[in-house]
Amino acid sequence: MRSHPLDDSVGALLRQFGEGSKRAAARLISLVEDGVPEALDILERLYPQVGDAWRVGITGPPGAGKSTLVDKVTEQLVAAGERPGLIAVDPTSPFTGGALLGDRVRLGAVANDGRVFFRSLATRGSLGGLSLHTAEVADVLDAFGCSWILFETVGVGQSELDVAEKAHTTVVVLVPESGDGIQAMKAGLMEIADLFVVNKSDRNGADKLEEEIRLALDFKEWPGWRPPVLMTEARTGRGVEEVLQALRQHRSWLEERDLLRQKRRRAMESRVRDLVLDRLSHSLWQDTGMRAQLDAGLEAIERGQASPYGLARKLLRHGRMTLQRNHESEESA
Amino acid sequence: MRSHPLDDSVGALLRQFGEGSKRAAARLISLVEDGVPEALDILERLYPQVGDAWRVGITGPPGAGKSTLVDKVTEQLVAAGERPGLIAVDPTSPFTGGALLGDRVRLGAVANDGRVFFRSLATRGSLGGLSLHTAEVADVLDAFGCSWILFETVGVGQSELDVAEKAHTTVVVLVPESGDGIQAMKAGLMEIADLFVVNKSDRNGADKLEEEIRLALDFKEWPGWRPPVLMTEARTGRGVEEVLQALRQHRSWLEERDLLRQKRRRAMESRVRDLVLDRLSHSLWQDTGMRAQLDAGLEAIERGQASPYGLARKLLRHGRMTLQRNHESEESA
Repeated sequence: MRSHPLDDSVGALLRQFGEGSKRAAARLISLVEDGVPEALDILERLYPQVGDAWRVGITGPPGAGKSTLVDKVTEQLVAAGERPGLIAVDPTSPFTGGALLGDRVRLGAVANDGRVFFRSLATRGSLGGLSLHTAEVADVLDAFGCSWILFETVGVGQSELDVAEKAHTTVVVLVPESGDGIQAMKAGLMEIADLFVVNKSDRNGADKLEEEIRLALDFKEWPGWRPPVLMTEARTGRGVEEVLQALRQHRSWLEERDLLRQKRRRAMESRVRDLVLDRLSHSLWQDTGMRAQLDAGLEAIERGQASPYGLARKLLRHGRMTLQRNHESEESA
Repeated sequence: MRSHPLDDSVGALLRQFGEGSKRAAARLISLVEDGVPEALDILERLYPQVGDAWRVGITGPPGAGKSTLVDKVTEQLVAAGERPGLIAVDPTSPFTGGALLGDRVRLGAVANDGRVFFRSLATRGSLGGLSLHTAEVADVLDAFGCSWILFETVGVGQSELDVAEKAHTTVVVLVPESGDGIQAMKAGLMEIADLFVVNKSDRNGADKLEEEIRLALDFKEWPGWRPPVLMTEARTGRGVEEVLQALRQHRSWLEERDLLRQKRRRAMESRVRDLVLDRLSHSLWQDTGMRAQLDAGLEAIERGQASPYGLARKLLRHGRMTLQRNHESEESA
């Protein structure tokens, strides 16, 4: 786990990255996303260039029009001279995503704009890996010079809470048909939203939904920032300017207080913890002894001779020794 | 981490639980959910009674009518002489959930039925804790004698993938307004659904949505079980019987092959890994030395004198020694 000199190809990538190569950036992101052994070294090398990109999480149910909204906000950011980076956090498998809905189809007008960096991240399979890699990929984009980073996440679940933890501003997009205000509250959105957007506001029920969200907001005291509720028709662009304005207001509001520092610190803490846990887990399950014990234990459970809890205890004992042994061999290497 | 004799109050709870006390069951679930030190012991004690409850995960966007569908399926299960247990996995905070939408409001006719066990679980705050506790609570309900366990989860995200991993049958509920078939595919539902339900099938677009799902299913080869697409109006009960029938068919289909064993094994493996990781993480961050290093490191990052990646490395080194030390002191205790 000590810092190693990076091999030649990674060194070349970092050099090209420094010269502004989008291809090198894409390649580095892939290495980070795949969690290759060099990933931590790459990220550490880039860290001094990580600046102040404003990180915006955009979440909401499928079909709420998040992608369209993100595209329009991105267009406006480009027009304002910003360099936006987009990260779509997408639980799509290669199968469905590749076959039915490529990035190019998804991302309309801004897809071919050289000033925009777009990246979609798969999420399947890795426990806790989503938020970890999201923040890391954002660091790469930040170091690459993006001034705004928009994360788009599908759905409302644990993963979105994690993303909200890592964003500076969280936007919750709802549509009249996605359920009423109470449903939104039920899904715990009140706690994560800095900004509500009622999209497809030309549809029936938009005013009612807006009213319900406002009423729900009234239930709570807002000594600080009260999330505004904005109406958009992302498809036509109506209301998008106001969204960007609200994003900038939230940014200034945080920056003018000590809140941004506190928010950054919490995000950093959750991130460092994730990193440590991810690495521990990695070195634990890579150990052949651990895997053999796990397999034998699972068979014993199947035969009714053990419980998952007993097995966990046993693995925990073994795992501690494994970690210590690995540690010692790395220290003496 | 070795098995300790449980203290008197827990012992009494386990006795009452064995005699069928719902109150004792509720209390034990709370202990498990809170992750008290005795939780593993409790679960290990109950494990021999964990039987063959069929575990069904029900997921979909907010407003899809999952709760209503779950209620109706539950009614039919009760009518068929089954003992259903319901677990609502809900990212609601105490604030919003308590004030706006109590369990009693949520759960219609079956709320007061003595043959039904209902429990809602909060999900906030614990990385990876959701699926862990969901499976554990299901074990308690299973040991209590529930023959079917329905997990209801809000949204489409990482947490739902985790729940799908732990369920025997996963039902995805969509409504005409929740987006089209391509949206559903985009959200990765194809991989987790054993059964699609188009709810609110009296509404405009229901037939179109059904058709889109079927078309999307046609994109893939289904050498084994092909997820059926059912239409329901959960509110009136129309189509609910067919859902239960499909659930039973899926169950038989898995049971008649070796697939159930494989599925159980995968679920068990992911669970044991989660347990080990959760415990490791717990003992890691409870250590005052680790916490002090974390705090000092976060301050150094704020001052621009360190990177999160460097800090993670340092904590990892310290963490391995911490785990080993804790291990030794427990072994010699």
